[in-house]
Amino acid sequence: MRIALDAMGGDFAPGPIVAGAVEAVLDQDDLVTVLVGDKEKIEAELAKAPGAPLDRLPIVHAAESIGMDEKPVEALRKKRDNSISRSWGLMATGEVQAIVSAGNTGAMVASALFAGERAKMFLPGVRRPGIAAIFPSHQGPIVIIDVGANMAPKPEDLYQYGLMGSIYAETILGVTAPRIGILNVGSEEEKGTDLTRGTRKLFDEGPWASRFVGNVEGRDIYEGHVRVVICDGFVGNVLLKAGEGAVEFLFSTLREELARLLPEFPVEVGMKVSHSLKNLKSRFEYEEFGGAPLLGIKGACIICHGSSKARAIKNALRVANLMAADRINEKIVEQLAGGSGPVAEADAAPQD
Amino acid sequence: MRIALDAMGGDFAPGPIVAGAVEAVLDQDDLVTVLVGDKEKIEAELAKAPGAPLDRLPIVHAAESIGMDEKPVEALRKKRDNSISRSWGLMATGEVQAIVSAGNTGAMVASALFAGERAKMFLPGVRRPGIAAIFPSHQGPIVIIDVGANMAPKPEDLYQYGLMGSIYAETILGVTAPRIGILNVGSEEEKGTDLTRGTRKLFDEGPWASRFVGNVEGRDIYEGHVRVVICDGFVGNVLLKAGEGAVEFLFSTLREELARLLPEFPVEVGMKVSHSLKNLKSRFEYEEFGGAPLLGIKGACIICHGSSKARAIKNALRVANLMAADRINEKIVEQLAGGSGPVAEADAAPQD
Repeated sequence: MRIALDAMGGDFAPGPIVAGAVEAVLDQDDLVTVLVGDKEKIEAELAKAPGAPLDRLPIVHAAESIGMDEKPVEALRKKRDNSISRSWGLMATGEVQAIVSAGNTGAMVASALFAGERAKMFLPGVRRPGIAAIFPSHQGPIVIIDVGANMAPKPEDLYQYGLMGSIYAETILGVTAPRIGILNVGSEEEKGTDLTRGTRKLFDEGPWASRFVGNVEGRDIYEGHVRVVICDGFVGNVLLKAGEGAVEFLFSTLREELARLLPEFPVEVGMKVSHSLKNLKSRFEYEEFGGAPLLGIKGACIICHGSSKARAIKNALRVANLMAADRINEKIVEQLAGGSGPVAEADAAPQD
Repeated sequence: MRIALDAMGGDFAPGPIVAGAVEAVLDQDDLVTVLVGDKEKIEAELAKAPGAPLDRLPIVHAAESIGMDEKPVEALRKKRDNSISRSWGLMATGEVQAIVSAGNTGAMVASALFAGERAKMFLPGVRRPGIAAIFPSHQGPIVIIDVGANMAPKPEDLYQYGLMGSIYAETILGVTAPRIGILNVGSEEEKGTDLTRGTRKLFDEGPWASRFVGNVEGRDIYEGHVRVVICDGFVGNVLLKAGEGAVEFLFSTLREELARLLPEFPVEVGMKVSHSLKNLKSRFEYEEFGGAPLLGIKGACIICHGSSKARAIKNALRVANLMAADRINEKIVEQLAGGSGPVAEADAAPQD
């Protein structure tokens, strides 16, 4: 498998990005990671990893890179030779089967739309790709889709996100017959907006009706009774970032509180509590999945958090490899074409 | 001050609701709390509080009550003699100056719109009332408005929410010159939707421009650099409930983790840590404000959480009393009429 990695994308690029690529190819024999970006800088990073198998870490030079806060469309127009566009170019020509970036999310999505003809980039039947984020829950990981690719979706888009998110949850996260719900402000059927009502109708009348549970309220997300939560990209993005903010805030407050208490305790107690907190926090970061897949494109694409370190990049490359090799896209195309409904029906009881 | 309290509203009504009313009138000499609901049930609860000043706890009978999960408009139509409509009726006729309920939020808002002529219920110039929720932040409490009164607002509505939220933050929360921001998916000006762009324009061109900081991303909410965050009622409601869900999830996971560790520690360590966690959690519940005000109506209205206990009800009555007595509504009317811009300008540095 050949995967393009945007070596210039992310708050700490290219250092940890290249380091993650080295770890990934050392870990996976079938993997070639094409490092896209400033050749000189990438070579300098590779030089820091003497044992790196350079034959499986080719470089494709891109003179420019797009900053995390740049306006996506404007930046893509001005900086023609940027690492994101170059990476998608490799996808369009079939030189790579997947793409991974911790760079500007907006530019990643917009570039996918610009890179080639729609028919060449999107899976047959897909209206618009959507970003699937993974949240923790009492029942295990859940998928929230879309978290930022599509700000003004139609019911048909959300319907497709439900299908794609469900196939992703089943295939990659290993959830059996995941339930699908639509994020809403109440449980009653007519709650919400034209978008939520329209989407419900499509599910209720379609082959996935048995998997669809209707509305999910914000506070129920973490219960995990619904493993695929669909929403428009605006709400999803706010939710994703507010969740990050809340976790940060809570842990920093918690640390202050414990710092006040701990001096009174034996040292080993303090160490155990600190270690325990660190473990707990990592459960909210979901680095093991490396990032959020952009579903609906040919091949695979993982968008990583801007603050990704080597471990997250390594995991994103592993998941991208898995996704590109898996039948996930075939299944998506089959289901979008009408399919025969989901393979397994949801149980009456919450799955776990 | 006379305040109508929906004695039948809330998951545990009427017990803790009536108990909260008793505590409130004992605490505040100038307060009369009109208990609205099933006379017999209310009397039974009052009988449990022998010292209660019954002269300041009159009952207005309502034969029916609206359940927490009932469809608001349908329930209001079917159950004419319900405690929420009856409470708003007392507002419309001027028999009370404020209203407090822990009942069905949708019914509370819809009933406000039905209770009397718009001109009689809304403050002059107000397009649609909005619900202001209080969130914690590193800088102290912040206001998020709207969290569920208006699912499809116009830019003009959000503009008004910004003004009203700001006046509320200043008057009731004591924040000096609070900054206003609009919840969005990025910091760049053109990000988001027609609604966010339209609202920005109104602020940038209006007398409140100096207070307006532009976009706020989800993860920045808890930093507290912006003390008034405006958004549509759908996003705000999802955010509010997801925040509750995240806090619940985090604390339950934390408790499990500590329960695993604590048996190894001395008993007093365990007790201190448990106590500390409890304290911390209460900081996220903001019971001291009792609930979320519905801003833009004549008098005052506080919508409490469905799970409110006596303490929350008591505090909501205190805040409603404060709001109805304060010049807050005059200030809102003045500013909506064009005013002279905010009294104090925001500092260049984050306020604290």
